Amino acid sequence: MKFNVRSEENLTMLTDLYQLTMMQIYNEDEKEIGCFDMFFRKNPDKAGFTVFAGLDKVIDYVQNIKFEEDDLNYLRTLDLFDEDFLDYLRDFKFECDVWAMPEGTVVFPNEPLITVRGPAEQAQLVETAVLNIINHQTRIATKAERIVRAADGRPVIDFGLRRAHGVTAAVDGAKASYVAGMAGTSNVLAGKKYGIPVKGTMAHSFVQKAKKEYDAFERYAKRYPDKTVLLVDTYDVLKSGIPNAIKVAKEILEPQGHKLQGIRIDSGDLVTLTKKARKLLDDAGLDYVKITVSNSLDEYEITRLLAEEAPIDSFGVGERNITAKSDPVLGGVYKLTEVEDQNELVTAKIKISESQEKTTNPGFKKVWRVYDSLTNKAMGDVLTLAGEDVDVMRMEDYVTDEALKEAMVVEDYMVKELMVPIFNKGALVYDVPTLEEVRDFCKAQVETLTDGVKKFENPDKYNVDLSDELYELKLELIEEMAA
Amino acid sequence: MKFNVRSEENLTMLTDLYQLTMMQIYNEDEKEIGCFDMFFRKNPDKAGFTVFAGLDKVIDYVQNIKFEEDDLNYLRTLDLFDEDFLDYLRDFKFECDVWAMPEGTVVFPNEPLITVRGPAEQAQLVETAVLNIINHQTRIATKAERIVRAADGRPVIDFGLRRAHGVTAAVDGAKASYVAGMAGTSNVLAGKKYGIPVKGTMAHSFVQKAKKEYDAFERYAKRYPDKTVLLVDTYDVLKSGIPNAIKVAKEILEPQGHKLQGIRIDSGDLVTLTKKARKLLDDAGLDYVKITVSNSLDEYEITRLLAEEAPIDSFGVGERNITAKSDPVLGGVYKLTEVEDQNELVTAKIKISESQEKTTNPGFKKVWRVYDSLTNKAMGDVLTLAGEDVDVMRMEDYVTDEALKEAMVVEDYMVKELMVPIFNKGALVYDVPTLEEVRDFCKAQVETLTDGVKKFENPDKYNVDLSDELYELKLELIEEMAA
Repeated sequence: MKFNVRSEENLTMLTDLYQLTMMQIYNEDEKEIGCFDMFFRKNPDKAGFTVFAGLDKVIDYVQNIKFEEDDLNYLRTLDLFDEDFLDYLRDFKFECDVWAMPEGTVVFPNEPLITVRGPAEQAQLVETAVLNIINHQTRIATKAERIVRAADGRPVIDFGLRRAHGVTAAVDGAKASYVAGMAGTSNVLAGKKYGIPVKGTMAHSFVQKAKKEYDAFERYAKRYPDKTVLLVDTYDVLKSGIPNAIKVAKEILEPQGHKLQGIRIDSGDLVTLTKKARKLLDDAGLDYVKITVSNSLDEYEITRLLAEEAPIDSFGVGERNITAKSDPVLGGVYKLTEVEDQNELVTAKIKISESQEKTTNPGFKKVWRVYDSLTNKAMGDVLTLAGEDVDVMRMEDYVTDEALKEAMVVEDYMVKELMVPIFNKGALVYDVPTLEEVRDFCKAQVETLTDGVKKFENPDKYNVDLSDELYELKLELIEEMAA
Repeated sequence: MKFNVRSEENLTMLTDLYQLTMMQIYNEDEKEIGCFDMFFRKNPDKAGFTVFAGLDKVIDYVQNIKFEEDDLNYLRTLDLFDEDFLDYLRDFKFECDVWAMPEGTVVFPNEPLITVRGPAEQAQLVETAVLNIINHQTRIATKAERIVRAADGRPVIDFGLRRAHGVTAAVDGAKASYVAGMAGTSNVLAGKKYGIPVKGTMAHSFVQKAKKEYDAFERYAKRYPDKTVLLVDTYDVLKSGIPNAIKVAKEILEPQGHKLQGIRIDSGDLVTLTKKARKLLDDAGLDYVKITVSNSLDEYEITRLLAEEAPIDSFGVGERNITAKSDPVLGGVYKLTEVEDQNELVTAKIKISESQEKTTNPGFKKVWRVYDSLTNKAMGDVLTLAGEDVDVMRMEDYVTDEALKEAMVVEDYMVKELMVPIFNKGALVYDVPTLEEVRDFCKAQVETLTDGVKKFENPDKYNVDLSDELYELKLELIEEMAA
């Protein structure tokens, strides 16, 4: 199924009020070009990396920017905007250039994920929606990738819909989780919208509603003879659930040439229960019946279950993934890096902070990734100014970090530029990949990382370096500010 | 502005796949009536109570349930549903009875917030969307109420849009925050959709883009002479931001008969900075200029700032409210409590759990709240079976908790039934209040709680009791299950 990038969702009004009041001023003044970077400062969960997601929706948003009459009527009631500005909004046309990391790229703190350059009032308008979309989807994709990795090849299904923060959190969260390697979702709307495989078993209410547990199992198995996963923990997993499941598998399904697909356990001590369930199933000749578990799972719990050799074939993961419960916010920001006036005079901009690590990187930039040619592992990223005449064969000359520089001198390396053009003066110039392509790309991206960077706890730090020229510009601006 | 309950948003497909596979079976079998309760088991943030929100959206969802042709076409591709069932979905009409707490009610663990009773397949279908909506909005309203209470009368504005989990999290989160007492939002779409007051100041980029900080301030003040709040921390609050703000107030605004509305500080030590800023402003004769602060605020940080006597007039609160970062999930569930077959035989249902506190309360129930007549404070809640002939003048007879019973015997009390009818056989029978009415009701509700229940840390436990009859039914079913 083709990944449906175009939608009818109009997010134009999904903006902070100040974007519009600032825009009205920019629109009245001499026109200037602004350049903004979207980036974040810390990997969530103290992880070693982050998985970039949400670009498809940013593209969709930008392509559908349109202030409708009822939007303008509403804005008129605020007594802030004059009719000239409302006319301008009515005819608004996005004309910026946009570069971005491809969706699924593994990314790191303080490097631009999206760069928007164009009429300052336009680049300013899109700040809020871009942050809302990227902060959400990137956060969930990053969490889901950890959970999928913990499951070590076993399918993980998103069960988070009922605990997500509303509709978009559930639907786009399911999509971000799929990008990161989940195998499907219980969420029907996400399945329809994005073509993600939808999965499901049965609820405790289905078992409770029947007179007996066996009756419920029998009924379900007869109705869906090739697609039945029985929920075995409504009463007692080992005394009742598994024996009834075995009876259904042997007496109802097998005689008709069908196979029970699986059983699900949603409570209790999952290590003990799955081991005993596996033995009961195997002893009954049902080694083909898969065991799936759910109930407050995340990367740590899944790691523990597998370390204790729980015989689990797949996982259903809910609230801890869909809300990224352990650390629910990616604090992405969108900062001005450069202004170009009507005389084409370019001024780099910096935002100083008391904490040096929060001080922004100025200027219109490019991001380069250095790979070890032998292992194909990423060694570090280098930010340069977009105007620098970078010789990728001599990339070590652009690197300031001594360890990275040394590694590059003694080893063979390859360099790739990470951000790609998305919009050119507002026109889409990017061939948006399908969701399956994004998912494959994400998997390949994670494989380029060293085991040290991928550790769940105390990961190795991945180096994001500044070129000499960029570093000097930054120092210069910091000094200028202090003067 | 009238609270716009009706929307065009069709959430029919926002459901877990298993609801539809179970529904297909229920639809083929003899029709039964099911009764389900939506409730939660723990107050988030270890709080003493929770603020119920989202009912307006549940009503909107239920009224707009409609499977469209493209939904059915999608479901057909799943190879799970036959044409009879798809025809049934095409003509689906919701015919359940629904009761709920009014939005803004203060609620407690294990009491029904919403009860749905009707054709089992219909009551089952709505589970997922009801949980998604209520879990989200109730979680955010509960967080926002704490933050508003910490601000002790000072306005709090929602600045969370850019960090929310997608569109709905931001828009409905702003609405839930407004229900809980916030004074407005920066979110323009939420303002338009719900009529919430929208507020804004300016971004750091606005100040950075100008040649000098003063130029930016002057420009903004001239453009919005009666509505200017200047962001004073782009460079140095005390050496540059405040002096420039004073200059603009005195030299640009006052001579024209205008007043600078306020200044905003978004970084640094807010206690020290606001005290020094206040003094500088007052010394310049600008005691009317308000000080607003933002930056990682929540109920604890606001309490600390005010305890240290920071002279703050209003707060902008972002990610910690809009994601309920400290504890982002309300674990609301939706459990079967009763089945009525075609012969009108009613069977109460219970879901046993290893942990006794997770065992559900069976049967179709009502919820009563007991108030001390003198203080108007809520003393406790009592769950009874809906069929019990409750004499509210003798409510102590229905109470099993000894302390509550004793308190009721010696004191004057009033009893109110909490849940109200929302739908009668699918027809809306509830006069949906405006958002302002809900907000006022919520405020009054919080005032009925004792200070002990409202404590941020280690609050008093509020008693939710079962009537004798309900308690006996529960014991009976537990024994039956064990047999």
